[in-house]
Amino acid sequence: MMAKPCIPKGTRDFSVEEMAKRNYIFNTIKHVFGLYGFRQIETPAMETLQILMGKYGEEGDKLLFKVLNSGDFLSDVTETDLEERNLNRLSCRLCEKGLRYDLTVPFARFVVMHRNELTFPFKRYQIQPVWRADRPQKGRYREFYQCDADVVGSDSLLNEVELIQMIDEVFARFGIRVAIKLNNRKILSGIAEWIGAPDKIVDITVAIDKLDKIGLDKVNDELREKGLSEDAIARLQPVILLQGSNEEKLQVLRRELSASEVGLKGIDELEYILRKLSASSLRASLEIDLTLARGLNYYTGAILEVKALDVQIGSITGGGRYDNLTGVFGLTGVSGVGISFGADRIFDVLNQLDLYPKESMESTQVLFVNFGERECEVCLSHLARLRAAGIRAEIYPEAAKMKKQMGYADSTGVEYVALVGENEIAAEKITLKNMTTGEQSLFTIDEVIALFA
Amino acid sequence: MMAKPCIPKGTRDFSVEEMAKRNYIFNTIKHVFGLYGFRQIETPAMETLQILMGKYGEEGDKLLFKVLNSGDFLSDVTETDLEERNLNRLSCRLCEKGLRYDLTVPFARFVVMHRNELTFPFKRYQIQPVWRADRPQKGRYREFYQCDADVVGSDSLLNEVELIQMIDEVFARFGIRVAIKLNNRKILSGIAEWIGAPDKIVDITVAIDKLDKIGLDKVNDELREKGLSEDAIARLQPVILLQGSNEEKLQVLRRELSASEVGLKGIDELEYILRKLSASSLRASLEIDLTLARGLNYYTGAILEVKALDVQIGSITGGGRYDNLTGVFGLTGVSGVGISFGADRIFDVLNQLDLYPKESMESTQVLFVNFGERECEVCLSHLARLRAAGIRAEIYPEAAKMKKQMGYADSTGVEYVALVGENEIAAEKITLKNMTTGEQSLFTIDEVIALFA
Repeated sequence: MMAKPCIPKGTRDFSVEEMAKRNYIFNTIKHVFGLYGFRQIETPAMETLQILMGKYGEEGDKLLFKVLNSGDFLSDVTETDLEERNLNRLSCRLCEKGLRYDLTVPFARFVVMHRNELTFPFKRYQIQPVWRADRPQKGRYREFYQCDADVVGSDSLLNEVELIQMIDEVFARFGIRVAIKLNNRKILSGIAEWIGAPDKIVDITVAIDKLDKIGLDKVNDELREKGLSEDAIARLQPVILLQGSNEEKLQVLRRELSASEVGLKGIDELEYILRKLSASSLRASLEIDLTLARGLNYYTGAILEVKALDVQIGSITGGGRYDNLTGVFGLTGVSGVGISFGADRIFDVLNQLDLYPKESMESTQVLFVNFGERECEVCLSHLARLRAAGIRAEIYPEAAKMKKQMGYADSTGVEYVALVGENEIAAEKITLKNMTTGEQSLFTIDEVIALFA
Repeated sequence: MMAKPCIPKGTRDFSVEEMAKRNYIFNTIKHVFGLYGFRQIETPAMETLQILMGKYGEEGDKLLFKVLNSGDFLSDVTETDLEERNLNRLSCRLCEKGLRYDLTVPFARFVVMHRNELTFPFKRYQIQPVWRADRPQKGRYREFYQCDADVVGSDSLLNEVELIQMIDEVFARFGIRVAIKLNNRKILSGIAEWIGAPDKIVDITVAIDKLDKIGLDKVNDELREKGLSEDAIARLQPVILLQGSNEEKLQVLRRELSASEVGLKGIDELEYILRKLSASSLRASLEIDLTLARGLNYYTGAILEVKALDVQIGSITGGGRYDNLTGVFGLTGVSGVGISFGADRIFDVLNQLDLYPKESMESTQVLFVNFGERECEVCLSHLARLRAAGIRAEIYPEAAKMKKQMGYADSTGVEYVALVGENEIAAEKITLKNMTTGEQSLFTIDEVIALFA
């Protein structure tokens, strides 16, 4: 007999309960995407390694799952290759395909390949799994879903505005209270320019981020350690201590960065986005946060991140504007802006706060107990009526002991159990038992249907 | 510059139009599955090769996509392995995971692994891609979706009845006229037993299937070639010539197979299923078809297949009962019965017959033309109203030329274009242009909302 069956580490099975919750998450997000005019695409799980390699840094290349060539995978492998045992070279001979690592690179490839069929601005969303050969750990998986919406081919800041409205709408529907943090890459560039340290952006944002924890003196010490001049540190003080409302922050920045063209451009952008959003009564709070430094290697404008207010967890959504998504595949001048919902973390937050609506569980609404052949006939015609009315209904497939059938109803989360025995058949009624309250009463089939209307 | 980007052969990108159609197909099927008490699960794309190998025959093993071990994939490879260049042995050293080949084996693995958490009968459905290193050809892909529903842990024929009702309901919703063909493995076994040729089932069904094309004499010739005795062929005549209604067919079979216990059991099963279904007014026609011989290596009872009546295409759905799904993983005595919708073929049929409902395209219902900053403010507040009412609405993100904006509306399939210029703002109205008819009139925002209610 074979060993106990298992699944690859870092991967997961999703049970019916988990799938119902995940469907609730994805359906909610998809619905909101649709309301804003975004439409879905899908790309294959496998991409050629030519598309994938070199896009995620050296570390990323190592984390790609590569797919062994089918047929004679050794045909391109020479004796020398085998002798040298050079893993990189050999893997390129053995494999020409890999599993996608994210949705962004396949999307860029999609836009380039289909550019003549697409209408720009192209507003697409994509919800598919990605694979990374990361060391599995709590909350980090080797297979997980990404959930991205992007607009490409439009420089308009209205796109940023609408993406933020979408984020607000999604979390409002989930009932998760969030803060949306906003930054702009151009402001960071402006700051770096203004203090004469353009290569120190990350060091600066990391240091500022510690202000609450370690205090101003230690932040300044850290900046010194990172090699900033005393003059630069002195100039940075108003930015490090930036506080107050968004308006106040913008005012300080506008004053301090008055000599930086790119900095002022970033401030203008941020101001435009905030002004447009102020008219739209967001439920989320919206905060300028200069320490936000995600994706600095590709974001060129807005940078945003979403934090849940009632659960300790990292960012649950992020995004920003990038000016050259498709350049690497030979199509330049296509600007894009996008967001990505962290489905696994949202799942954790909804679980912790127990925010799933009862309907989202998609469990059976009426289960008919099976009393035997004759009763079953009657149940089948009732079932047809209920299903035609859109009610999820089933009959226990065998005339098993009552206890077993009720146990099934209990553990699958059935809402009502329907009993149709001789008496009910004679009276043309159905005894319906509410599985939550335990109450039970007699109904006609029409009354049962009306119950769920 | 890099080579023109491409995707692995046999794989596909799905455009927004194709995804909308696919979503329509999957959502329809999912909804019907739900009405019958089936619930969704998902399993990982990768399974261990231990789970996958040896389950699909020698040919199947070759068609598995294997995933190169991450890290030092040569660590288990000896000099001898390299020298021998034995592909099978080497691939097992280089790879311990593969992409799933179907949903059945992962489901069996799932049931065995989670048997203590599951309630039986377990009614699950699963809609996920599978991968096969088949030679790509028209209509055959290396990545395609399967769409399976199964009940495990119940011997009741009511499951067969409900699965057939589900099939009927799904195709009725699609508007595809179908014939559901039914057979029973036990009847085939009975026939083989009765003519004394138990190993000839496939030869017999293949020969009978040619009756219409080649005539009785040639069918009998073929049977002779396959090694059937004259006596066996003589006994087979009533079965080969089986015609008429399902009742007539069952009558003949019951007479001819009266000596075969297993044959009679199969006839009883088929009769039960047909009787139960006759009360439920199926829209599909239901036909006993003894030439149906799919999955003979694992089906043990009912076998079914669905043919589209108005399009020339192979079977678009299939299924049957298997009595030992999980035996290979060490859990015996779990009977199952299931069906699998052929999503790609259904997609082709719906395309050919042009049966997609207009709503299924999920295109934007109202697009606001962007006239500039001031008008845009007003549009944003209209957009909020429309979206709150569940209407898919967007604004063109830049104040581009009218022609460009209308072109966008045209090519993305927008239903109505909304024009809000100075006059409309003054009158608190919206000019709405119907993109199908070209008609345009003035509405208040409430009237626009009412239009879609």
